[in-house]
Amino acid sequence: MGSTFGRIFRITTWGESHGPAIGVVVDGCPAGLDLSTEVIQRDLDRRRVGQSKVTSPRQEQDRVQILSGVFEGRSTGAPISLITYNTDADSSKYDAIRDMFRPGHADYTYWAKYGHRDHRGGGRSSARETWGRVAAGAVARQLLRTADVEVYGFVRQLWTIAMETFDRAEIDRNLVRCPDPVAAERMVAAIMAAKDRQDSLGGLVEVRAENVPPGLGEPTMDKLDAIIGQAMLSIPAVKGVEIGEGFSAYSMTGKEHNDEFFIEDGRVRTYSNHAGGMLGGLSTGEPIVARLAVKPTSSVSQPQRTVDVQGDERTILVEGRHDPSICPRVVPVAEAMMALVLADVYLLNRASRI
Amino acid sequence: MGSTFGRIFRITTWGESHGPAIGVVVDGCPAGLDLSTEVIQRDLDRRRVGQSKVTSPRQEQDRVQILSGVFEGRSTGAPISLITYNTDADSSKYDAIRDMFRPGHADYTYWAKYGHRDHRGGGRSSARETWGRVAAGAVARQLLRTADVEVYGFVRQLWTIAMETFDRAEIDRNLVRCPDPVAAERMVAAIMAAKDRQDSLGGLVEVRAENVPPGLGEPTMDKLDAIIGQAMLSIPAVKGVEIGEGFSAYSMTGKEHNDEFFIEDGRVRTYSNHAGGMLGGLSTGEPIVARLAVKPTSSVSQPQRTVDVQGDERTILVEGRHDPSICPRVVPVAEAMMALVLADVYLLNRASRI
Amino acid sequence: MGSTFGRIFRITTWGESHGPAIGVVVDGCPAGLDLSTEVIQRDLDRRRVGQSKVTSPRQEQDRVQILSGVFEGRSTGAPISLITYNTDADSSKYDAIRDMFRPGHADYTYWAKYGHRDHRGGGRSSARETWGRVAAGAVARQLLRTADVEVYGFVRQLWTIAMETFDRAEIDRNLVRCPDPVAAERMVAAIMAAKDRQDSLGGLVEVRAENVPPGLGEPTMDKLDAIIGQAMLSIPAVKGVEIGEGFSAYSMTGKEHNDEFFIEDGRVRTYSNHAGGMLGGLSTGEPIVARLAVKPTSSVSQPQRTVDVQGDERTILVEGRHDPSICPRVVPVAEAMMALVLADVYLLNRASRI
Amino acid sequence: MGSTFGRIFRITTWGESHGPAIGVVVDGCPAGLDLSTEVIQRDLDRRRVGQSKVTSPRQEQDRVQILSGVFEGRSTGAPISLITYNTDADSSKYDAIRDMFRPGHADYTYWAKYGHRDHRGGGRSSARETWGRVAAGAVARQLLRTADVEVYGFVRQLWTIAMETFDRAEIDRNLVRCPDPVAAERMVAAIMAAKDRQDSLGGLVEVRAENVPPGLGEPTMDKLDAIIGQAMLSIPAVKGVEIGEGFSAYSMTGKEHNDEFFIEDGRVRTYSNHAGGMLGGLSTGEPIVARLAVKPTSSVSQPQRTVDVQGDERTILVEGRHDPSICPRVVPVAEAMMALVLADVYLLNRASRI
Repeated sequence: MGSTFGRIFRITTWGESHGPAIGVVVDGCPAGLDLSTEVIQRDLDRRRVGQSKVTSPRQEQDRVQILSGVFEGRSTGAPISLITYNTDADSSKYDAIRDMFRPGHADYTYWAKYGHRDHRGGGRSSARETWGRVAAGAVARQLLRTADVEVYGFVRQLWTIAMETFDRAEIDRNLVRCPDPVAAERMVAAIMAAKDRQDSLGGLVEVRAENVPPGLGEPTMDKLDAIIGQAMLSIPAVKGVEIGEGFSAYSMTGKEHNDEFFIEDGRVRTYSNHAGGMLGGLSTGEPIVARLAVKPTSSVSQPQRTVDVQGDERTILVEGRHDPSICPRVVPVAEAMMALVLADVYLLNRASRI
Repeated sequence: MGSTFGRIFRITTWGESHGPAIGVVVDGCPAGLDLSTEVIQRDLDRRRVGQSKVTSPRQEQDRVQILSGVFEGRSTGAPISLITYNTDADSSKYDAIRDMFRPGHADYTYWAKYGHRDHRGGGRSSARETWGRVAAGAVARQLLRTADVEVYGFVRQLWTIAMETFDRAEIDRNLVRCPDPVAAERMVAAIMAAKDRQDSLGGLVEVRAENVPPGLGEPTMDKLDAIIGQAMLSIPAVKGVEIGEGFSAYSMTGKEHNDEFFIEDGRVRTYSNHAGGMLGGLSTGEPIVARLAVKPTSSVSQPQRTVDVQGDERTILVEGRHDPSICPRVVPVAEAMMALVLADVYLLNRASRI
Repeated sequence: MGSTFGRIFRITTWGESHGPAIGVVVDGCPAGLDLSTEVIQRDLDRRRVGQSKVTSPRQEQDRVQILSGVFEGRSTGAPISLITYNTDADSSKYDAIRDMFRPGHADYTYWAKYGHRDHRGGGRSSARETWGRVAAGAVARQLLRTADVEVYGFVRQLWTIAMETFDRAEIDRNLVRCPDPVAAERMVAAIMAAKDRQDSLGGLVEVRAENVPPGLGEPTMDKLDAIIGQAMLSIPAVKGVEIGEGFSAYSMTGKEHNDEFFIEDGRVRTYSNHAGGMLGGLSTGEPIVARLAVKPTSSVSQPQRTVDVQGDERTILVEGRHDPSICPRVVPVAEAMMALVLADVYLLNRASRI
Repeated sequence: MGSTFGRIFRITTWGESHGPAIGVVVDGCPAGLDLSTEVIQRDLDRRRVGQSKVTSPRQEQDRVQILSGVFEGRSTGAPISLITYNTDADSSKYDAIRDMFRPGHADYTYWAKYGHRDHRGGGRSSARETWGRVAAGAVARQLLRTADVEVYGFVRQLWTIAMETFDRAEIDRNLVRCPDPVAAERMVAAIMAAKDRQDSLGGLVEVRAENVPPGLGEPTMDKLDAIIGQAMLSIPAVKGVEIGEGFSAYSMTGKEHNDEFFIEDGRVRTYSNHAGGMLGGLSTGEPIVARLAVKPTSSVSQPQRTVDVQGDERTILVEGRHDPSICPRVVPVAEAMMALVLADVYLLNRASRI
């Protein structure tokens, strides 16, 4: 249960970190959309490991194959099955800790729930599962392009280092996907230092969507805020999400926080965007802004106290290949999840009026 | 669309602020649960308006009627329909602003989506909709009691005033549901002052669940964190949610943030609970901790710039009866949503193993 | 679980035969639809009991109240809550058989599943539940009217008496809703004779939808045939459903059964309609034709062998007020379910293409 | 949309007849289930083409690969991805009819819905899609084995030839899966004769489930009858489904049709099983009996009148490789769908009581 996201643009991911392959099925993509492996691979390449010194050294080409749902370069409305084969899984490091629970990981909780688990590389709970999200997100993004909706994300803060300037073009120019080149350099240095100390760092990732038409989303339980919240908190390592001012909202008064309306070129606009582009769970037409709290990577190669499946207390030393900070790689995943949410509400919205 | 929450313990709320009645249907409640209007009313009374000087003066008895699903004091497994009639709606204040969009409210976005809306008192987007959540939440909570799971919430911070001490017994002794009586007094004063200034305040609400068995939740898309995130962000005025350390997590390193395991009375425990009771989207058995950013109430009785349905710029003065801070009343709603999430995963979990 | 039908035009029914009220919540109705109690009551009046000598003598006015989702005569997109209060329930007849299981009814199976049940008048399993279906179906039908889709049904056969002529105007002129007035008279006589013998009769109901645009439905699992099948088999007493030729299809060869295409007024048509308006699970544009096998009413006032909750064998005599044949009242329910299916696929179809 | 079946034991199929591969994802299979390619392949081999003179000559090994969700021979609770590569697709026969609509097939309706389709071999609408159903059904069946539930099916009638004797052991001994060896021989002869005439035949398939515990299913909308109805009518070529007496029920009176109860070995039984093992949408504990009307295969190699995408009337000659009667191969698919339904309700039922 629980591997499916979306209501009418629905994805189902599958696969384990050290299994033969991982993939995703996209059901509900409308027919007639231009799709190719190139369009999907472009997004996938942004989340690949082994890209630089700040990511895991595991080498995976992550080449996507389209197995169904696309014919002569366009979607047919049938489910789109996307797959990649795991080629560089190294399970040897996991034999020694097979019966122990790595702190900060899902080992214990999966064991408590299922009683039987694939322990290699985190199995199903590995961040490798996000391959399918990004692949499906690329399809969603292609759909959004037909409506001129654009989604992008970046690292706003890493550990204690916050960005101070914003240059969107800068985002893809540095290893940490930070729009401030000066902060980016300090972030890279901090990550390398943490890696040397066998430690890890977290950060703050922001995702935005622009050109979103007003009125998208569903009220009450499925508010756009709520669905974005679910989407972002389903990403491994994300432990918080805020919309617009979010956790800063309560230091303002109502008068300060309200975004007043005006008319610009015949379109309803707001002077400010403290609401992050959503009111009452529906889009306002202003940019959608969500921020994610990313915890420091749980895999740190220092001895830690833990227990094993027999109920004995042990000391564990987690080896294997890890990202000293997952933040730069959370960016494309968060973009994908945002695109998936928006593709879904964009289609759902067609049923709002007779 | 979007009025349903839950997968096998499912609720559907309905009703508008100034309509004849509001209610909720709970489908999927197991048979054999002791249920009565008293059990449900107890929770409802905690969210009622007109309770004190810090809430809206609207007077609603909010008496629940059980219309189905309960026979001779116990649930039958059939859908439980709960209803209350609106008795003190006053729509007169809304005539003047019928065609205008109140800043911070859903007026504009509902109009953009639907083209036709019940403008009176916010209609469907009113916080009055949460009556059904709390009524259904009381049923969920009754189910959780059979498993000794306990849910409670409180106001941690109001505007700039943070609690400094924690005494759980204190929560229901003061008007703002703050576990620190000294801070509570300052919070009440701040709310009264804001009210006098025709302004409003937000705050930080925390919800906890204790005695949750390990392994509850579903991995990947439906992580427990993610479903709690959706649940909380679907509450009116909530603009952020964090689990455990949440937005503080990224100022820690991985070594600092990881919760190490030990054994206590044969049970797996963690020395700390930075993860807020969840790893890999499943419960750890430690207390579940979620915090909600609540924005200041959007209704402020000062002139604000806005536009109308004709596309003209206007000045609006929102009258009507409002909560100068919704925080104390978000507490029972957040508790209800937490109970609904946990009842659902508690039942779903029965299908985890053969 | 299981009280909800539909994917984006979704209904949830609730209520027991002898509870205080019954009702339905319609979520996902598009905004802007003309709706009134009159429109809904018209359909409800067609399924009422106490209408004639061939139906149960229970007297229920079944007056619908619209509690939400409609403002100034038009739907708002918010959930539409419809309710009626039970006024003529007489539970006295059920005390004597409280612990016994009526043959042909759901008494035993509900008890096996839930261990606790409302035994009065069948409780949740009563055909009274269909009030909500017909009320919601009237909303669906109103939506379909905006697309010129028309749904109607009739009794094709009752027990061994089959219709031999078809005059649509005749359907609502006789007590059994049969388009053949001669057969209708014989059907009424057969029902009265069965009633006198304390017995009951079943029959064959047909539902048609005309003017359905081609391409509605979803392939594979949610084929239009399959969803209609679910819809119809969810109606109490229905034990079979066939589409087009259905169970006659296999006495034909492929060449005989295939509906060949031609062009009429620029529109694709078929010379025959053996497929009943569906190919590959999608509508062809030809009339949709479904037939339902309706079993004879289970309540017969003759002594029958049964067992009780203690596991003892007993003889039961079922009293109470029943329909000697439910067929005429299945007609409006089957129409409602067909309308609900079509409203749902009609809206879903808007997401089929970019 | 529409490629998913099940509520908590959920499958999603994907793939086209002439695409590179087809497959299925099973989400919600409990952990701890013994699973291997052998167990799954055994069921798949029963639906393979190229098995005999009465099936399509297309040669597909249909070897299943398990890509996820199984570790060391047991399910982990993670989604189970099953795949097979298409190896013998021959698209050449479809070039000539690319722009024409084959009568009886989904060509026209897919085109009407999507505007763009994979025409080769029926694309997504091909019966090849059922590979995934049978593969997933084998997993469901393995789960049911842990509860001693057994599912099997057979051909009851083919065209005008009905079985007259029942010997279960006979089913897998003949080419048409008929439990009557004499009738089987006549059926084979009829199929071969139809094939020679370039024609095709349909039939009546029956599926049974034994040892089903009482109380499985969900009432009202998701009645077991209804879900079985959806499941069976979603199988290509199936145009009718009946439960128990089904379309014979209405020739009986209520007294004749009711199944009276008695006690056998402390268990509640019924003297007859006209209800086909279901009352009020829940299982009674008696064998579940469903019958499917299977239309004659639509592909017949005789000239037929049709139209093309330009709206011109044409004559079409459908070539390619087809089953002259699909009935024998519907059997394993119907068994799979029955197993999927029962696995789902079996798990859901765990949430019926506190």
